[in-house]
Amino acid sequence: MATAILSIDMSALVENWRSLGAIAQSEPAAVVKADAYGLGLQPIARTLSRAGARSFFVAMAEEGVALRDILGKGPQINVFSGHMEGDTALIRDAQLTPMLNSIDQMLRHVEALPGHPFGIQLDTGMNRLGMEEAEWAALRDVALSQNPTLVMSHLACADEADHAMNARQLQVFREMTEGIDAPRSLAATGGILLGPDYHFDMVRPGIGLYGGMPYVDARPVVELHIPVIQIRDVAVGESVGYGNTWVARGPSRIATISAGYADGIIRAMGAGAHLHTGSSAVPVVGRISMDMIGVDVTGLAHEPETLELIGSHQSVDTVAGFADTIGYEILTSLGARYKRVYV
Amino acid sequence: MATAILSIDMSALVENWRSLGAIAQSEPAAVVKADAYGLGLQPIARTLSRAGARSFFVAMAEEGVALRDILGKGPQINVFSGHMEGDTALIRDAQLTPMLNSIDQMLRHVEALPGHPFGIQLDTGMNRLGMEEAEWAALRDVALSQNPTLVMSHLACADEADHAMNARQLQVFREMTEGIDAPRSLAATGGILLGPDYHFDMVRPGIGLYGGMPYVDARPVVELHIPVIQIRDVAVGESVGYGNTWVARGPSRIATISAGYADGIIRAMGAGAHLHTGSSAVPVVGRISMDMIGVDVTGLAHEPETLELIGSHQSVDTVAGFADTIGYEILTSLGARYKRVYV
Repeated sequence: MATAILSIDMSALVENWRSLGAIAQSEPAAVVKADAYGLGLQPIARTLSRAGARSFFVAMAEEGVALRDILGKGPQINVFSGHMEGDTALIRDAQLTPMLNSIDQMLRHVEALPGHPFGIQLDTGMNRLGMEEAEWAALRDVALSQNPTLVMSHLACADEADHAMNARQLQVFREMTEGIDAPRSLAATGGILLGPDYHFDMVRPGIGLYGGMPYVDARPVVELHIPVIQIRDVAVGESVGYGNTWVARGPSRIATISAGYADGIIRAMGAGAHLHTGSSAVPVVGRISMDMIGVDVTGLAHEPETLELIGSHQSVDTVAGFADTIGYEILTSLGARYKRVYV
Repeated sequence: MATAILSIDMSALVENWRSLGAIAQSEPAAVVKADAYGLGLQPIARTLSRAGARSFFVAMAEEGVALRDILGKGPQINVFSGHMEGDTALIRDAQLTPMLNSIDQMLRHVEALPGHPFGIQLDTGMNRLGMEEAEWAALRDVALSQNPTLVMSHLACADEADHAMNARQLQVFREMTEGIDAPRSLAATGGILLGPDYHFDMVRPGIGLYGGMPYVDARPVVELHIPVIQIRDVAVGESVGYGNTWVARGPSRIATISAGYADGIIRAMGAGAHLHTGSSAVPVVGRISMDMIGVDVTGLAHEPETLELIGSHQSVDTVAGFADTIGYEILTSLGARYKRVYV
C-alpha cells in the first residue's frame, strides 16, 4: 500500500475545543471551513457537535449546505462570506445564518428572505470582510431592529500578541457595537489567547482546535505517516530527483516515499525539511516530486517501512517552517489521497 | 455564490493528447495520477478513453482501483509505485499492471500473483524509482522470460532540453534495454519534446495534456474565475489582510475574492501576483488568507463580479511563477471547493 496514513486524534480535538472554551468563558463555536482545515468535515463536525458545539462557521454557503446534511437540524451554521448572489435558496433550504458584510448583502437578504436569521460582520481594520464604519452607521438601527443573531469582526494580527493592531481593532469593535443587545464576537484562536477583553459573548476557534499555533498548549491532533516505496544505495556524485539538485557527497542510502506536492507537501520545502523514524530525523533530499520524495536514510540502522512527516517528533508548525509558511496552510493542504484514520 | 468556477476545456485536452502522440509517433498513454493533475479523474479519464487512449498511468494502486471503476474492463492501468505490500488484492481485483521497481517487488509480485501482468521500471540516474543496473542485471533474464508488458524509465531533467542528463539517461536506458522484445518507454511530456530518440514504443504525457509547460504549444485547458465578495474604499495608511503587510499609499478600492490557500492558491504568492478582469491586470494585496484574497481594483472603471486567476490572460505557468514554483504544483493544488465545469 502506497497510501499515506493521516491519523486524527478526536479526543485531542475535543479537548482543544473545551480548553479554548474554558479560557474564553464564553460560548465556543467551531470553525470548520475548508473541510475542517483539511481533516474531514463530516467526522470533525459530528464529533464537535456530540461534544456540545452548537454554533459552527464555514466560509461559503455551499459548505454550509454540506454541513447541514451532516449535522441535521439544530446547530447554527454561520457563513462568513454572507449572502452572495445565488445563495438565497441554499441559505433558506439549509437554514444557514449568513454574516452580512455590506449594505448590498443586507438588502439582498432582507428582500429575498425576510425574517430569516442573519448576523452582521463589521470591518474593524483588516479591510477584508465586513461593513465599514460609515456603512454600519447608516444601517445600524435598521439592522439591529431585526435582531441579528451575532455581530462579529475579525482580528488581522491576533497571532502576534504584541501587535498594536489588536488593541486598535478591539477599540473600534467596542465603539461600533457599544450598547447593542445582540451577542458579539471578535476572537478566533489568537484572539482567545489575547485575554478576556477580546472574548465577548462568543469565540470562534479554528486552528487551535486542530492543534496549530498560536495555541501553544494545544494537544496535537494530526499525525502523518508515509510509506517507503524503495530504498537504494547512491554512490558519491550521483544525483537524486528532478533537476539533479542534490548530489551525494558520500555513499548514501536513499528512500523514496510515497507522497509529494500533489498531497499538499509544499514543493518549496525541499532542502531543510526532515521526516522522522522513531526519534531519528532524516532529511529530504532533492526536489519534492508530485507523488514522491527522496529521503536520506543513510544513518539508520534499520530500513523503515514508513516515515513520519507530522507527529510527536515534529508539529504541523515545524513542517510549516520548512516551507516558510504557517500551520494553517499545511493543514488545509493535506492531500485527498491520504487515508484518514480517526482515533 | 462564493464558489469559484474552474472551467476545463475537454477538446483542448484531447487535442493535446493527440498532438503529443503525433509528435512521438508511438502509442501515447495518458498519465492521470493525482486526480488527473487536479482536474478530476472521472471526466478526464473517460474523455481520453473515448478519444482512444488505451494505457493509463497512476501513482498508486488505490488510484488504479478508482480508475478501473471509471473505465471498466479493457484499458491498461499501470501503477508507477509498483507492487507494494498490501497491494496484491487491489492489483488482482482491479486488473492493474504494476511497474515493478525492485527485486523485492518482483518477488512479491510473482509469488502472490503468478502470471499476472507487470511492467519493469528501471532507474537510469534519477535515483527515485526503479531497478538499479546491478539489480536489473541479476534479474533481467528471469524478468524478461515472463513477458513484461513494458520496460520503462523516467527522465530527471527533461523539462530542460539542453541538460546533459537527458542524453546520459537515454544512453543508460539503451544499454539496459538493448535487445529486449518488450515494449519500451522513456518519455513523459518533456521527453516527447526531446525528439525521436526518446520516444521508443510508448510515451507517457501528463502535464502536456493539461496545458502546462514544457509543452509550449499546448492548448490551455484550465480557466479559474473567482467571485468577488465585496469591494471597499481603503484610505491612505490603512492596511489590508493578515499581519498588516500591505498599506494603502493612495486612496484605493480593494476587492475581497472568495478563494485562498485552502483552495491551493499557494500562500507564498502574495506580493507580485495578479488576477485579470478582461485584459486589465489587478494585483493581489496583502497576505493570501485561507478562503479569501485582497485585490487592488482601484484602476478599474467597473466593479467586477469575478476575477480570473488562470485563463487567456495568464497561464498556469505564469501563476506558478508568482509562487516560484512550477505549473504542475498549481494544477495538483486546485481546490476541492471549486465547481469544476467541463466544456
